[in-house]
Amino acid sequence: MDLEKRGYMNRILTVDLTQEKFNTQSLDERVVYRLLGGKGLATWILYQMVKPDVNPLDPENVLALATGPLNGTIAPCQKLCIASKSPATGTINDSYMGGWIGGELKFSGYDAVVITGRAEHPSMLVVDDGNVSVKRCERLWGMNTSAAERKVIEELGEGFKVAVIGPAGERMSPIAPVFSNLRSAGRGGLGAVMGSKNLKAIAVRGFRGVKVHDESMFERMVWIALRTLRMNEVTVRSLPIYGTDNILLTINETGALPTRNFQTGRFEGAEMISGESYRSELWLKDFSCCLGCNIRCSKIMKAKRGGGEVYVDGPDYETIFSLGSNCGVSDKEAIAYANYLCDEYGIDTISVGVIIAFYMELYEKGYLKGEDLPVKPIFGDGEAMVKLAELIGKGEGVGKTLQMGVKRLAEKYPGSEKFAMHVKGLEMPGYEPRAAQGMGLCYAVSERGACHLRAYTAGVELCGYGGGADPLSHDRAKVQLAIDRQDEKAVVDSSVLCFFTLFGLKLKEVYQMVVSATGFEYKDPDELKKLGARIITLSRLFNVREGFSRKDDTLPYRCLEEPLPEGPARGQVVHLDEMLDEYYELRGWDHEGIPEKETVSKIGLKDII
Amino acid sequence: MDLEKRGYMNRILTVDLTQEKFNTQSLDERVVYRLLGGKGLATWILYQMVKPDVNPLDPENVLALATGPLNGTIAPCQKLCIASKSPATGTINDSYMGGWIGGELKFSGYDAVVITGRAEHPSMLVVDDGNVSVKRCERLWGMNTSAAERKVIEELGEGFKVAVIGPAGERMSPIAPVFSNLRSAGRGGLGAVMGSKNLKAIAVRGFRGVKVHDESMFERMVWIALRTLRMNEVTVRSLPIYGTDNILLTINETGALPTRNFQTGRFEGAEMISGESYRSELWLKDFSCCLGCNIRCSKIMKAKRGGGEVYVDGPDYETIFSLGSNCGVSDKEAIAYANYLCDEYGIDTISVGVIIAFYMELYEKGYLKGEDLPVKPIFGDGEAMVKLAELIGKGEGVGKTLQMGVKRLAEKYPGSEKFAMHVKGLEMPGYEPRAAQGMGLCYAVSERGACHLRAYTAGVELCGYGGGADPLSHDRAKVQLAIDRQDEKAVVDSSVLCFFTLFGLKLKEVYQMVVSATGFEYKDPDELKKLGARIITLSRLFNVREGFSRKDDTLPYRCLEEPLPEGPARGQVVHLDEMLDEYYELRGWDHEGIPEKETVSKIGLKDII
Repeated sequence: MDLEKRGYMNRILTVDLTQEKFNTQSLDERVVYRLLGGKGLATWILYQMVKPDVNPLDPENVLALATGPLNGTIAPCQKLCIASKSPATGTINDSYMGGWIGGELKFSGYDAVVITGRAEHPSMLVVDDGNVSVKRCERLWGMNTSAAERKVIEELGEGFKVAVIGPAGERMSPIAPVFSNLRSAGRGGLGAVMGSKNLKAIAVRGFRGVKVHDESMFERMVWIALRTLRMNEVTVRSLPIYGTDNILLTINETGALPTRNFQTGRFEGAEMISGESYRSELWLKDFSCCLGCNIRCSKIMKAKRGGGEVYVDGPDYETIFSLGSNCGVSDKEAIAYANYLCDEYGIDTISVGVIIAFYMELYEKGYLKGEDLPVKPIFGDGEAMVKLAELIGKGEGVGKTLQMGVKRLAEKYPGSEKFAMHVKGLEMPGYEPRAAQGMGLCYAVSERGACHLRAYTAGVELCGYGGGADPLSHDRAKVQLAIDRQDEKAVVDSSVLCFFTLFGLKLKEVYQMVVSATGFEYKDPDELKKLGARIITLSRLFNVREGFSRKDDTLPYRCLEEPLPEGPARGQVVHLDEMLDEYYELRGWDHEGIPEKETVSKIGLKDII
Repeated sequence: MDLEKRGYMNRILTVDLTQEKFNTQSLDERVVYRLLGGKGLATWILYQMVKPDVNPLDPENVLALATGPLNGTIAPCQKLCIASKSPATGTINDSYMGGWIGGELKFSGYDAVVITGRAEHPSMLVVDDGNVSVKRCERLWGMNTSAAERKVIEELGEGFKVAVIGPAGERMSPIAPVFSNLRSAGRGGLGAVMGSKNLKAIAVRGFRGVKVHDESMFERMVWIALRTLRMNEVTVRSLPIYGTDNILLTINETGALPTRNFQTGRFEGAEMISGESYRSELWLKDFSCCLGCNIRCSKIMKAKRGGGEVYVDGPDYETIFSLGSNCGVSDKEAIAYANYLCDEYGIDTISVGVIIAFYMELYEKGYLKGEDLPVKPIFGDGEAMVKLAELIGKGEGVGKTLQMGVKRLAEKYPGSEKFAMHVKGLEMPGYEPRAAQGMGLCYAVSERGACHLRAYTAGVELCGYGGGADPLSHDRAKVQLAIDRQDEKAVVDSSVLCFFTLFGLKLKEVYQMVVSATGFEYKDPDELKKLGARIITLSRLFNVREGFSRKDDTLPYRCLEEPLPEGPARGQVVHLDEMLDEYYELRGWDHEGIPEKETVSKIGLKDII
């Protein structure tokens, strides 16, 4: 099988930073046929290479950048998969970044880069059209993300696409992402893993082309996908005009907008932080964050602050929920400014907002009595929120503790675990699971803790997409919906396309592109979906090896025991146990959430791991 | 069967205006079990009572107002069915009106009112809690709609709900609707039928309650429906904030916004007439147009004109397309003002805009050379559009001819039929069928000509609702989609609920309300959908008796032969013939569109007609 003519470069670059050794190997045909690329490939690499119980911040941990067969082609909306064992959760953690580095990696000749070890000095990895080197870069250490990225390009020359970490990543904060071209691989501390490897930046440039199997068919299938994206309200209007925040008013109406640390799902200041409101007051311009994007959901906003003005990519819905409603803050500019600080210092806005909200509730409930506070952390105080975000970004004062995340913070205050909003150590995103039961299941079973992007049932449950589903139902159909979404997402993450394509495309269009690009003879979209299920089970196996099981597939006490006080979901808690039973059964995992031996074999994993 | 305890009043009022005779009869149990009410009941009444080949403007024609079992209850969004043989098309024509008269009719003791004959003098029909009378009202003749409605209430006293016609209805223009409380039963000339009967107004008041079969279950099912409507983006945000015009930018992006008399599907001035733009510039307030509505898609706008300012209910999407993009007009206030004139004179905005656009193309193509023109009818000229709307409303000058509709106008100009945008004499609504093949089929097979409300596939095809469908496909699946939508709509129209509930609800929720209200033992939502199919075939039988068949199920030449010049549907025409074959087959109608005998029997019609 000639993978070089099937959307692959057929080369994985392995970098040992400790010994400064580089190695290239070709792809395993069976592996890419079964796991495609991106998420599938990265999960397989980590499963093979990361020894059980390795400390995520140890040099032995592996950082993988993986593309899929659609990267570097003319396909729409291409992202890059970055994965590692997470310092936040101890689980496998794959995250998807916009920017232009995914395609560039293939242009430089590689499908994936696998990084182990630890550089002696602050360094950057440079991949220049097949030539690999590690360069010392003490001068960049301590720099904010945008400055560091600019500086690398200045030094190396035009055409380089660069991923960097900020000061928080250098400090190995478990809430530090990797950044590139204003976008981030945001969650689970991938920036901390880079920091632990003394790796400030990864720069890539290349001039090779990506060849697909059936070029004219591929062109036609891409054209159909692009046209389909232009013929769907969400991808042609809601996202392009208002960005992801287009949904905020809906989420609020459905009672699912986490407010004041998930104490309720309705925020009285919702109108002031809606997508419409941002568009009319702070919006500057739209942009496409990644190769091939015809959606342009990214928004550049401006925010006045302290006499000056900053420009920020965002805030997006998740940031507006976390730094906004979740902190009780309706000050648009405070949220935008805090977003700017998070990006510059290199911390994840979701985690930051949820940490600050938790800190505010700690204060509200009297846990902080006698402590030396830099600012009174009161719900609704935008200035306090900004100040705390800044301290977390700098890792100064109380920020030193806060930057470690909600889970570790709660350990300091016995009793507070009940309202510490995280799963497996990852802070919860912006959909109140009591008002969208499917999201509750998704947070609980996601391989990296509370992630909304592993199976976005919220679109169906809260916005009515795809025919809608009762958000309060928690029956087998709901569980199946979550599984379907999870499997489809795993396919997209392995291609590697942006998740948002699925608001307009069905798996059919993705299938058509994948098959014409790779020539792999997947029978139908359903067979590709099974590939997604295979990957989900493989990442489960990784976590099981690390000791995770049903006991960890849980939700905060608040979601399971405190009924939601208002809105259309008033009185609800998440019916997790019932859904877990169904979920494991449908997945072919046992009652404890461990994949059955027959499943591993039947699903096509046995002979590749 | 005790229909009085099953959501019905069990009384039909028959009014013979010629002889001023009133008659009351009870409902036929088999008929309401098989046809429910509203559309089903009205269609049955017309099928029984309207003799073939009756001139729609003859006293012998029948005007029926019909409610369904959900009218007057606590169900959401209740409308009233008004039906007659149409003077525009010669087909059966049922139209659905907001306002409060539907519930009131039941409170006054009747499920339906059936009007025949012709009053000697201008009159109004008064139904006051079971007491029926016909009152002379020469003083109202010639009055605009809002003044006439106000005047009737002034004269009769508080509590009356009133339906009226404007001057155009009195003149029996086939584009004249019936109006009530700012809403209209808009299409097919129901106002002309009232005019032909010398009937200026129908006033209803009553104090009786509607009893449902299982009250506590019904309450719960209504609560679930209301909650579901609050948990769907379209019914909780898009419609409530921007009204129906929320879709305009999407429809434009998909290349389906009829522009300059359907010459293209992209309008360069779309941004200026978007729902967002109206909201930010002319919007005054939202309101619920009918009993039980929790969507509030109606918008009151203000428009400055000639030094003064008018207030108008609307413009809605259809009006903005027809008087706006379709006339090349991007002047928001001109559109709103023309909307106001149409409402006051009592003419249908869709037809008016399509007539004016046709007139503009006649001018553009040189057909009007040598004619005495009141204004140069040039695409894009808002003033000309307003002037022409006014002339049509008044029936003055060229308005006298224009008020007869596009079909009759085209007969005056040989060759112009190719771009006369109507089906069976009804002017086309705001979805370019070349960019949404399903809509093409729906326009062609709708019982009353080009109607977007008989099977709204546009939501699925162009906006991605319900999972989306390729707008350009014209296969069996697309035909099935149209049939599903048509059948579901017939159920909603027989209940009688607002069509927009189906953006949030599935048929399941409607089924739950209908079954708990009526106690009818329909097995499942699918059985209710079959009831919808039964009604569609019954209305087909009416039209077949009038001589309609496949030859009439067609579209304008432009849609079938001229490829769309731009947008994602560039190069397309409507593939109608293929879809018709499939449609008839799936319906159990023969190749000419005549229901097969076995179908009539199998579908449960044979023994009730």
